[in-house]
Amino acid sequence: MGGAALDAYGVPLPAETLAAAQASDAVLLGAIGGYKWDNNEKHLKPETGLLQIRSGLGVFANLRPAAVLPQLVDASTLKKEVAEGVDIMVVRELTGGIYFGQPRGFGTNDKGEDIGFNTEVYSVSEIDRIARVAFEVARKRKGKLCSVDKANVLEASMLWRKRVTSLASEFPDIELSHMYVDNAAMQLIRNPKQFDTIVTNNIFGDILSDEASMLTGSIGMLPSASVGESGPGLFEPIHGSAPDIAGQDKANPLATILSAAMLLRYGLGEENAAKRVEAAVTETLNNGFRTGDIYSPGTTLVGCKRMGEEVLKTV
Amino acid sequence: MGGAALDAYGVPLPAETLAAAQASDAVLLGAIGGYKWDNNEKHLKPETGLLQIRSGLGVFANLRPAAVLPQLVDASTLKKEVAEGVDIMVVRELTGGIYFGQPRGFGTNDKGEDIGFNTEVYSVSEIDRIARVAFEVARKRKGKLCSVDKANVLEASMLWRKRVTSLASEFPDIELSHMYVDNAAMQLIRNPKQFDTIVTNNIFGDILSDEASMLTGSIGMLPSASVGESGPGLFEPIHGSAPDIAGQDKANPLATILSAAMLLRYGLGEENAAKRVEAAVTETLNNGFRTGDIYSPGTTLVGCKRMGEEVLKTV
Ligand SMILES: CC(C)[C@H](C(=O)O)[C@@H](O)C(=O)O
Ligand SMILES: CC(C)[C@H](C(=O)O)[C@@H](O)C(=O)O
Repeated sequence: MGGAALDAYGVPLPAETLAAAQASDAVLLGAIGGYKWDNNEKHLKPETGLLQIRSGLGVFANLRPAAVLPQLVDASTLKKEVAEGVDIMVVRELTGGIYFGQPRGFGTNDKGEDIGFNTEVYSVSEIDRIARVAFEVARKRKGKLCSVDKANVLEASMLWRKRVTSLASEFPDIELSHMYVDNAAMQLIRNPKQFDTIVTNNIFGDILSDEASMLTGSIGMLPSASVGESGPGLFEPIHGSAPDIAGQDKANPLATILSAAMLLRYGLGEENAAKRVEAAVTETLNNGFRTGDIYSPGTTLVGCKRMGEEVLKTV
Repeated sequence: MGGAALDAYGVPLPAETLAAAQASDAVLLGAIGGYKWDNNEKHLKPETGLLQIRSGLGVFANLRPAAVLPQLVDASTLKKEVAEGVDIMVVRELTGGIYFGQPRGFGTNDKGEDIGFNTEVYSVSEIDRIARVAFEVARKRKGKLCSVDKANVLEASMLWRKRVTSLASEFPDIELSHMYVDNAAMQLIRNPKQFDTIVTNNIFGDILSDEASMLTGSIGMLPSASVGESGPGLFEPIHGSAPDIAGQDKANPLATILSAAMLLRYGLGEENAAKRVEAAVTETLNNGFRTGDIYSPGTTLVGCKRMGEEVLKTV
């Protein structure tokens, strides 16, 4: 899929690829996109293939952990005392909202002017299912859930807040709070440790999960898991394809390796295997190996291939 | 307007208030909202009054500076070397997009389920006028403009990017770049000094300007100016009404005082007067006075009233 599929088949997600993914137990996805396809029309963009496979697999819940590893606390641009101990899970709604809402497109308004438009829309069942996932995730973490919306302005957010609030009675052990998205963007910088689990819509989740990941200073380290009611989950690093360093053996492979760990845990229920992969990554870091994006003086700078070999040695 | 108007007249923006604002040379706005009205229906929220006065005055361009003052660099949660010298101007589109787009509301979908929905929509003229303001602003600054959108997913953003790109030929002296909103949320934390002027839509501007302001660590210091083609501008601090400390003489008045300086500059063309107000604020900080939000050991902690008096003394 993505750019490779565009080159070989002329579409960003061939039907065979989607069918093969749907017939799998779990899907590990590499990052997509690159300069070559940047100016393609929308239906021929690699990104469109990504949205199609998410939607085609029905993976409505995207889990994006952003934790500051003790070994990498210096990689954060935040002061040490602010960054240390940050451990946030963003639960992003992934198959609804403005990414998929109809109507959308180009047209003219009543003054005859060209317009571009999209629809932000959520239904009760879409909100309820992502909220339930988030409450469950919070239960396995510190029991704190912060729902982020813009309910002071948007009707879609008002319904969101109303449903999340009413579901709270099913999860009396979870401490639920609400925050406006603009305030959340600030609070993540002011005091990220106040957050445990965050649940939000597709577009706010896109923005806030990237912001949260950058707090850790090591976005090349961060995996994600996308899961649905049933069927295979989709596991991918949160970083992009980094076309600027393609083919240079510089990319950090750890986010993809940790995505494979999430695949083992959430996709195949192999908790022990997941833990072994994660422990191997930790040990490799403890052994001092670093790709360029997380390098600091006193550690050993290695390329992508070597980093993978070091993890393999310890797994 | 806001909560006070709701209590006295039952609406968040009485017609007389809007008429008086429209008949003025410039409008200085205090922060609106508070717990008391938080659960009001949408048309009776203080926030609705704010959107109505912005729209009623036609102030489509919201200028939000976020600069790290040398005296306050320690107030930032960012490392000193990252925060030092940050000086960003966010130009946010303020009277269009998903805040005002029609259709919006509540309804049922084809499965008979309740939904909430909003429309993100931009027309060519709306994009062109905000882009022109942003190019002009960049010209008075370091000549770098970054347009932020989500053109890899949203049609409204594709039109945005197309128009901004085509207007660039009118401003050959300005260095224009484009960035996706999720990446912008990251880059603001990774390396905020890469930005000079940012232009973006209403909702992305809401989020990113708050994020940018928090980088400075002193959101109680930040003013904003909203201007239209003609008619009075609207000047307000970017912070909210801070209901948690209402009546305690703790709030930082400097954002409002600096909004008055922007009013003098952009609203009345009184550049010298604006500079005197700004110089008075700088001198007051140099004299060591700090409200609680920007306090650090070695400075003099004062309340809201005293801070105002100190500025008055030096103006
Ligand atoms: C590439 C893009 C379509 C995608 C998104 O917006 O979902 C990416 O930013 C992400 O977060 O996975
Ligand atoms: C209060 C709210 C409606 C408003 C907005 O979203 O525009 C505020 O957050 C702001 O940025 O001025």
